[in-house]
Amino acid sequence: MRQNFTLLLLLITGILSAQNNDSLIIKSLYTEALSKTQGYYWLEELCKKAPKRLSGSEGAAKAVDLVYQQLKEINYGTVYKQDVMVPHWVRGEKESAFMISGKENVPLSVCALGRSCGTSPQGLKANVIEVKDFDELTKLGDKVKGKIVFYNHEMESDFYNTFQAYGRAVRYRWAGANRASLQGAVGVIVRSVTLAYDDFPHTGAMADYDTVPPIPACAISTMGAKKLSDALKKNKDLQIIYKSSCKTLPDAPSHNVIAEIKGSEFPEEILVVGGHLDAWDTGDGAHDDGAGVVQGMQVINLFKALNIKPKRTIRCVAFMNEENGGKGGAEYAKQSKDKGEKNIAAIESDGGGDTPQGFSFEGDSALATKLFAYKNLFAPYGMHDWRIGHSGSDIEHMKDHGTMLVGLIPDSQRYFDYHHAASDTFDKVNKRELELGSASMAALVYLFSEYGVK
Amino acid sequence: MRQNFTLLLLLITGILSAQNNDSLIIKSLYTEALSKTQGYYWLEELCKKAPKRLSGSEGAAKAVDLVYQQLKEINYGTVYKQDVMVPHWVRGEKESAFMISGKENVPLSVCALGRSCGTSPQGLKANVIEVKDFDELTKLGDKVKGKIVFYNHEMESDFYNTFQAYGRAVRYRWAGANRASLQGAVGVIVRSVTLAYDDFPHTGAMADYDTVPPIPACAISTMGAKKLSDALKKNKDLQIIYKSSCKTLPDAPSHNVIAEIKGSEFPEEILVVGGHLDAWDTGDGAHDDGAGVVQGMQVINLFKALNIKPKRTIRCVAFMNEENGGKGGAEYAKQSKDKGEKNIAAIESDGGGDTPQGFSFEGDSALATKLFAYKNLFAPYGMHDWRIGHSGSDIEHMKDHGTMLVGLIPDSQRYFDYHHAASDTFDKVNKRELELGSASMAALVYLFSEYGVK
Repeated sequence: MRQNFTLLLLLITGILSAQNNDSLIIKSLYTEALSKTQGYYWLEELCKKAPKRLSGSEGAAKAVDLVYQQLKEINYGTVYKQDVMVPHWVRGEKESAFMISGKENVPLSVCALGRSCGTSPQGLKANVIEVKDFDELTKLGDKVKGKIVFYNHEMESDFYNTFQAYGRAVRYRWAGANRASLQGAVGVIVRSVTLAYDDFPHTGAMADYDTVPPIPACAISTMGAKKLSDALKKNKDLQIIYKSSCKTLPDAPSHNVIAEIKGSEFPEEILVVGGHLDAWDTGDGAHDDGAGVVQGMQVINLFKALNIKPKRTIRCVAFMNEENGGKGGAEYAKQSKDKGEKNIAAIESDGGGDTPQGFSFEGDSALATKLFAYKNLFAPYGMHDWRIGHSGSDIEHMKDHGTMLVGLIPDSQRYFDYHHAASDTFDKVNKRELELGSASMAALVYLFSEYGVK
Repeated sequence: MRQNFTLLLLLITGILSAQNNDSLIIKSLYTEALSKTQGYYWLEELCKKAPKRLSGSEGAAKAVDLVYQQLKEINYGTVYKQDVMVPHWVRGEKESAFMISGKENVPLSVCALGRSCGTSPQGLKANVIEVKDFDELTKLGDKVKGKIVFYNHEMESDFYNTFQAYGRAVRYRWAGANRASLQGAVGVIVRSVTLAYDDFPHTGAMADYDTVPPIPACAISTMGAKKLSDALKKNKDLQIIYKSSCKTLPDAPSHNVIAEIKGSEFPEEILVVGGHLDAWDTGDGAHDDGAGVVQGMQVINLFKALNIKPKRTIRCVAFMNEENGGKGGAEYAKQSKDKGEKNIAAIESDGGGDTPQGFSFEGDSALATKLFAYKNLFAPYGMHDWRIGHSGSDIEHMKDHGTMLVGLIPDSQRYFDYHHAASDTFDKVNKRELELGSASMAALVYLFSEYGVK
């Protein structure tokens, strides 16, 4: 009896101490991230030295070299670049838009949408017709012929998760030009998809032109949208002159940047972690997605700092071209598949550097639900929101590879205030919030590396 | 059998629909708060028209009048001022501190602590001795005689909840002058209690002088602390000259501002909700605690907007003098007790206007745990953190009145970056984060008003 009891005690102690070890290691990851904030310093450097890093640009090339160098300096595992051809859209000269009001031209704050064509050098001069949504557009029929369609669709404020509101509003940016062109419109102005009321236009990708005549499309700031809407109420015949020299050049060579620590026990099982390196040419791309890139880099760095030897292989990937093509994510998935690699899990951070609240799992949902058992280990760090849902655009290319896809969920209240705008700058990122995300990703990678994902 | 089944069905439907009604009303409160953001506009006005509203100041008087007026304009229930005498400490001329380095005087960014005495008009010139904590001070014995003690205690970065780190670091600000004076020091410089590394000194209250000689005490920015510490490493005989004309004047008359909606069924049961109206004279007091004040005001406004007639009486209180005396909270509790009033619950927001994460209950903890059953109703709004703990300084005066005390828990990552500093300005508050707090408080008040707290 006594012996059995002792055995049982040993067994229980063993289990408890394994759990305890995990929680201690996780605590150390958070402590290291919050006290050294290395990701924050990397982000500062990235924003300062390689802002405006849209695919194919000089900024993107600088970002590739910089992140490669930063990863090299960690001095843990191997670092390499993976070639990928990317779309190369350029903004050209800064756009301008004016309301023609009597003898006065009143400026509007606009910026071309990614993939849009430009105007003639003289600019596009036309009447403007405002619609709230596609229903209104459809009803107008050929009344929009020869006119600029102004989609003044407000992003809805009453979702707690602002990504839900984004999903519903972004369709006008994405499909607005094609839909309007189909009805004979000559241009499109789209209200910025943001909950902020300010004078920053928010760019972003639109769909490639369908079989319709290509027409120029731009975003307008929310203040600009109000100004324009108010002016249209007073004068239905209001004209606008819009100039843009944006265009699409031939595809250009670029790279994903990858750092890898080989697993000690199961090196063939790969854990991918990262974000995307490209960013719109309007700002620093601090939240979108410099934050995700440095959080992924921090996983490697935190493992090094705590001298953790992962049992499974860890790959930090800084993906190129998420914003207007997704070629980096696709190329990584393709090459990996061609080599017969086994990416057992992939974790992406592409929702900004604000306080993380949890993880979103995409893939085998029965299996994901089992992984929710880890939730308790993250409770001391506010990571309460574990759910089935969207993971990340770059890793989704591995959807059919049997990979468990995971997205970090940050607080989304402020994200769209800066998203794709000139206001997405380094000063908008808080070092603690950013590093809580780094540590959360490192902790999940640690658990996956120790125990796999099954 | 069939009849019983129908009865059961009716009963279940009844219960479900009551729950459903609550969740619908709560949803409406969040929608109204997020779409109209009235609290945010009030906060803008408060920060613009009545910044630097330390008790007894002109700013505080303006704030009383402004909030009274804003509450009047809601036009729901009654609005009144409650007299209270408050401490009246004034900063006087802006402080200055210089390191005397050869022929050069190197400026340091400092500000006097609340309740501190000033220096002579010529300033205080003395050697500086750096300590990390009280242990080091004690060991120095009378070596600190005639010197300025520099408490260079870093706020710890590894707590998820920064209030825990604050609690451990603030003792040097609070008790540092008394402790140093006891050992013969002539002045005190305290490293700002913040996790930000910048050049803003963070003020705050220190304890009244004990039976020791009063010595001047100031806070120094974290950058200043590094500058001073580095200089001391090079030159142990470094002198500083510090000038301040701060002083304590006789107590001054001021007010709590109160808005009240009488309960329709249990008017004698009172629900208190609010924050504190006074703020340090260094900034706008946007997060501390303009945010809490307007969130409390929003409870009244949201009830009005949705035409909710509360069953119990709701009192929104903007308390005066939390920062350096707590006289407003004490006066409210005293007058209420004298009148035999029954404050069944009090909810305070005094942790900033960042994304709310839950509520902290102080009082009958068995009862509080029962109230945690409401947690599910708040889950869609990220309010996951329900716990037993500190509520709020103003309402704590009702601790022994059988009142259920509740504190709103906002995300604490950024709070101490701005706390008590010139950087606590309106632009640091996000409208959605602020209004999520308003709606959360309104929702809890709504439930308490419908069902009581037992």
